[in-house]
Amino acid sequence: MFSYQKRLQYPVNIKKKDLRMAKYIVTQYGGSNGELAAALRYMNQRMTMPDNKGKALLNDIATEELGHVEMLETMVYQLMKDATLEELKEAGLDAHYAEHAKALYPTDSNGVPFTATYFATTGDPLADLAEDMAAEQKARAVYENLIDLTDDPDVIGPLLWLRQREVVHYARFKELFEDYQKKLKNGANELPKGEMPLMKENLKGNFYPIGGDTLVEQLYMDNNFYR
Amino acid sequence: MFSYQKRLQYPVNIKKKDLRMAKYIVTQYGGSNGELAAALRYMNQRMTMPDNKGKALLNDIATEELGHVEMLETMVYQLMKDATLEELKEAGLDAHYAEHAKALYPTDSNGVPFTATYFATTGDPLADLAEDMAAEQKARAVYENLIDLTDDPDVIGPLLWLRQREVVHYARFKELFEDYQKKLKNGANELPKGEMPLMKENLKGNFYPIGGDTLVEQLYMDNNFYR
Amino acid sequence: MFSYQKRLQYPVNIKKKDLRMAKYIVTQYGGSNGELAAALRYMNQRMTMPDNKGKALLNDIATEELGHVEMLETMVYQLMKDATLEELKEAGLDAHYAEHAKALYPTDSNGVPFTATYFATTGDPLADLAEDMAAEQKARAVYENLIDLTDDPDVIGPLLWLRQREVVHYARFKELFEDYQKKLKNGANELPKGEMPLMKENLKGNFYPIGGDTLVEQLYMDNNFYR
Amino acid sequence: MFSYQKRLQYPVNIKKKDLRMAKYIVTQYGGSNGELAAALRYMNQRMTMPDNKGKALLNDIATEELGHVEMLETMVYQLMKDATLEELKEAGLDAHYAEHAKALYPTDSNGVPFTATYFATTGDPLADLAEDMAAEQKARAVYENLIDLTDDPDVIGPLLWLRQREVVHYARFKELFEDYQKKLKNGANELPKGEMPLMKENLKGNFYPIGGDTLVEQLYMDNNFYR
Amino acid sequence: MFSYQKRLQYPVNIKKKDLRMAKYIVTQYGGSNGELAAALRYMNQRMTMPDNKGKALLNDIATEELGHVEMLETMVYQLMKDATLEELKEAGLDAHYAEHAKALYPTDSNGVPFTATYFATTGDPLADLAEDMAAEQKARAVYENLIDLTDDPDVIGPLLWLRQREVVHYARFKELFEDYQKKLKNGANELPKGEMPLMKENLKGNFYPIGGDTLVEQLYMDNNFYR
Amino acid sequence: MFSYQKRLQYPVNIKKKDLRMAKYIVTQYGGSNGELAAALRYMNQRMTMPDNKGKALLNDIATEELGHVEMLETMVYQLMKDATLEELKEAGLDAHYAEHAKALYPTDSNGVPFTATYFATTGDPLADLAEDMAAEQKARAVYENLIDLTDDPDVIGPLLWLRQREVVHYARFKELFEDYQKKLKNGANELPKGEMPLMKENLKGNFYPIGGDTLVEQLYMDNNFYR
Repeated sequence: MFSYQKRLQYPVNIKKKDLRMAKYIVTQYGGSNGELAAALRYMNQRMTMPDNKGKALLNDIATEELGHVEMLETMVYQLMKDATLEELKEAGLDAHYAEHAKALYPTDSNGVPFTATYFATTGDPLADLAEDMAAEQKARAVYENLIDLTDDPDVIGPLLWLRQREVVHYARFKELFEDYQKKLKNGANELPKGEMPLMKENLKGNFYPIGGDTLVEQLYMDNNFYR
Repeated sequence: MFSYQKRLQYPVNIKKKDLRMAKYIVTQYGGSNGELAAALRYMNQRMTMPDNKGKALLNDIATEELGHVEMLETMVYQLMKDATLEELKEAGLDAHYAEHAKALYPTDSNGVPFTATYFATTGDPLADLAEDMAAEQKARAVYENLIDLTDDPDVIGPLLWLRQREVVHYARFKELFEDYQKKLKNGANELPKGEMPLMKENLKGNFYPIGGDTLVEQLYMDNNFYR
Repeated sequence: MFSYQKRLQYPVNIKKKDLRMAKYIVTQYGGSNGELAAALRYMNQRMTMPDNKGKALLNDIATEELGHVEMLETMVYQLMKDATLEELKEAGLDAHYAEHAKALYPTDSNGVPFTATYFATTGDPLADLAEDMAAEQKARAVYENLIDLTDDPDVIGPLLWLRQREVVHYARFKELFEDYQKKLKNGANELPKGEMPLMKENLKGNFYPIGGDTLVEQLYMDNNFYR
Repeated sequence: MFSYQKRLQYPVNIKKKDLRMAKYIVTQYGGSNGELAAALRYMNQRMTMPDNKGKALLNDIATEELGHVEMLETMVYQLMKDATLEELKEAGLDAHYAEHAKALYPTDSNGVPFTATYFATTGDPLADLAEDMAAEQKARAVYENLIDLTDDPDVIGPLLWLRQREVVHYARFKELFEDYQKKLKNGANELPKGEMPLMKENLKGNFYPIGGDTLVEQLYMDNNFYR
Repeated sequence: MFSYQKRLQYPVNIKKKDLRMAKYIVTQYGGSNGELAAALRYMNQRMTMPDNKGKALLNDIATEELGHVEMLETMVYQLMKDATLEELKEAGLDAHYAEHAKALYPTDSNGVPFTATYFATTGDPLADLAEDMAAEQKARAVYENLIDLTDDPDVIGPLLWLRQREVVHYARFKELFEDYQKKLKNGANELPKGEMPLMKENLKGNFYPIGGDTLVEQLYMDNNFYR
Repeated sequence: MFSYQKRLQYPVNIKKKDLRMAKYIVTQYGGSNGELAAALRYMNQRMTMPDNKGKALLNDIATEELGHVEMLETMVYQLMKDATLEELKEAGLDAHYAEHAKALYPTDSNGVPFTATYFATTGDPLADLAEDMAAEQKARAVYENLIDLTDDPDVIGPLLWLRQREVVHYARFKELFEDYQKKLKNGANELPKGEMPLMKENLKGNFYPIGGDTLVEQLYMDNNFYR
């Protein structure tokens, strides 16, 4: 179960309202690569990890991501709370105001509501951890975009901290991915999938290469007309 | 921020696998009236409540609902974890297996992924609390449906407890709704909306009644052809 | 069945184009708390209401909401119909123009298409009526937001009238909710759900309180760091 | 505005419950090619039709489709209302029961909620009428599928009648499409789009044909490996 | 299978960045009436066409539409690639930047992600071809809207060419629709649906006309209050 | 541009109808981890890869995935084409029949329509390639689930081949990921993101650890109550 502690995981004290920034940051809350997707991804995957180490890692990072969700909510709230109607109009948040006034709602920056289709669970530990590593990389990239979009140190501070946490989580997931991969090669049977032979004979005879080349040659071929 | 305690809020120990029940219970996790929608609804609304009492109530119930999410996850996991492929096919969970094996994923009982459109935030405390009261009533109704669908006391126990929590939350939200409503009548100006005059003159002259009757008569009129 | 009468339920005669207002008002047509969601919500719920009074009330208000849908369509159409391409660009309706020219389409103010996930039906009369009361409160709140966003009396007039209708509908739903609740306590058996004992013994022994406090104390505790 | 008449457009009196049929028919209510999509499609398109004839045709058929929605609701309700829990389980409606008990809800046969993305409005009368003709053809096809799935004359009767109405509507839309097309050729300027020259010179020189053939030859070429 | 040829189907060489135009054009890539929907629509329908001519036509046009998708991707990319952050903000593409930087993503102009609900497949060749004719008309209309929104000949050129292709495809689909319709009248039994008698007797006695008029009279009646 | 070659990339010749298998395989076409998502993911990402090698790799694999889409379409079609109505009912494909007859449509195994939210594009080459590696792992896992669900060698053959292709693609994406990562460390400036200092000082002083432990200790802690 979860309990609540009356503090944020990292302090957020934004003094200057900035509605456009509120609009951008919301995507890291309720958007495709955001913290809500991350928290739910790990909260779902943890139960089918093959050992306690995996269950614990997913559980702990899920808990931390819930704290990140709250930090982003707080950032959006502080950036928006003192705005006048005129300022909301100028920032393009009038559409948000019509439906939600100044209340929070998990969407991307275009106002598209959060959906669980942003994340996947497969029950395969390697696939789930690859998904998690990707999630952390994508979140890192979005934090960098968000940092590009502001000059306010009160906003940059928490964003930099959050970005750094993604880097740490990525490293943890990678460690576990490689650990599971090794066990698999050693024949450890707690990992039910992935041991199938590579079926090289399947690549012979029946396979039609793409574009008139053999596949290996074709990969890395130059492709420059749309630059 | 949230911290994790290594126990469930109420114990779940299901000994008998029951895949159809797993399929039903998942809707109270990731479906329209489920606990994930509830937790996110309150986690979003809390910040724009007009006073500390409101913020705290929403915050605390949001935290509890996260624990309910985890209980439901555990129920689904325990009901499903020892199933054979044949049993999954018979229970109609083969479609789930193809995509997720036995991993959890927040959907309704038909497999439709969770979406934030299941809940609303308006920034108006009375509207938000009415939404919350409705959410608790709907969750109560779904728990009753779920209890109808099983005979296993290990499943009924946690469901009854969860249903009871919805009844308690409903009472708390109602209390606060009525408290805010009273303040509004007393002219308390911390509630920004709802004080507009009833504009009775707007109801005269221009209004076209429905169905040839006056509106008041028409309401409650008998309508029995489709029974 | 429905028949059509060649008038609007309340007259709409907007003389001044206002594209931003068109963009806001559309949310009360096709958005989360809008009239289309309301009409469909009641049209679906009516058939499983437990008596004729309930069926009729839902049916009649559903019919009226269809008329509100049409009023909002008319408002959006009139606000937009004489706009030049330049004006559409300035108002942020160029995205709408690319796909729909000046045709209507039911979305929220961000352009997210209408979805039935905005409303719920449970077959439980108390849960359904609580959902309906919430719907009317939310629609009232959005009308107040919309009124905030304009100064044109030709726009404010119909919005005020529509808001007032929500207040009336809320009162009707509340009346019926309380009537059904009473019948339930009297043991009336036409209401199939909700009679289950409160299961107080479930609250003892097994329950882990949140945050180190008893639940009752914790509710209403102060929570002020994110203000 | 719409008013309600206390009868169905065509009588529905189904005496034999049939839950699987309920599950199929719901798609013609809330699915991709269903009557709710049709009613909303026409209700949106009518306002931007170029003349009164177009506005009236769309308006009237929209009104009729609302009556079809109600007929389908009644069919689903009657097919389902006397079912036991066991029967709901056997028919695969247990997933519906968990969330909705026996209440109606607009989905397709898989339980996917209705979305406005099922229909389009373009503001171009020829494009909108082509969309409408397609809608009527698709609805006709689904009615034929539904008729294939049952032997009950009480169910077939209304389905046949509804199918026939789609044939009539298709004919009306086609008439109007051809009428507008003719006006366009005559240079009538109430149709703002479609007069652009065919730009034949654009087809010369720069165009890369698909598959090594000229486009005209390639069309209709045989393609039979996946039969 | 598909192979790739290192050229665009029609050349795209846009020299002047134009971010608003990038935002509009994306809808013809990932929006409701766009080329991705078209390509997938035909790629799905082709397999159940009743003869080789139908299969080939759908297959070839599907292949061409994939090339159109790529042209639109290239247009969006070229219009956006040299933009500064400030320019992205002014054009309202800052919301896109937060999530995607300058990467492509298939949405409509409001940023709503592509969904397969934009198109339908029925297995009925007449219904499917009517859907296809509508798709081509709608795409034509959107291209005309897009051409309205720019003055840059480098942008207008490819848009005009693409619009022209829709006109050609519409003609091909119409040809095939009429061909299949004729076969149907001749009693050709490769078309399984649509031969059902018109059931005229179903129209007598039981049918309640809309609005107090006979249906035929009512169609085309004047309806002018909302102009 | 794409051209079409009249063969499948790998032959599909299924002689025995198997409707449940058709229902499972469709998820690898239109589901969350499927080939359509893969093809579109790479087709979007390719244009913002930082060099020709990256553009070419994404382009070629996108093209191949389009061929996989077609193979899966063919498998679903062959598994379903000779089914009777009774067989469709038994296999739970009656819901599909009501809407689509035997036509293809891209959904997951529960019938949820394909959505672009299944994949992400960030414009950051490392994040995009991590997403791609995850996609290949997830697709591999789903192919293994599908192989578990059948005994027909005509079905297993193509599935094994497709699974093997995912393994190859994963290796290619990993190679490129590591290549770009190295360039980044060498200060190559064609990669615009990710060079930000780790901001270790951000981890001191202000950070509240989760659950009373230091973060490092907490990771990997045992968590075993829900097993």
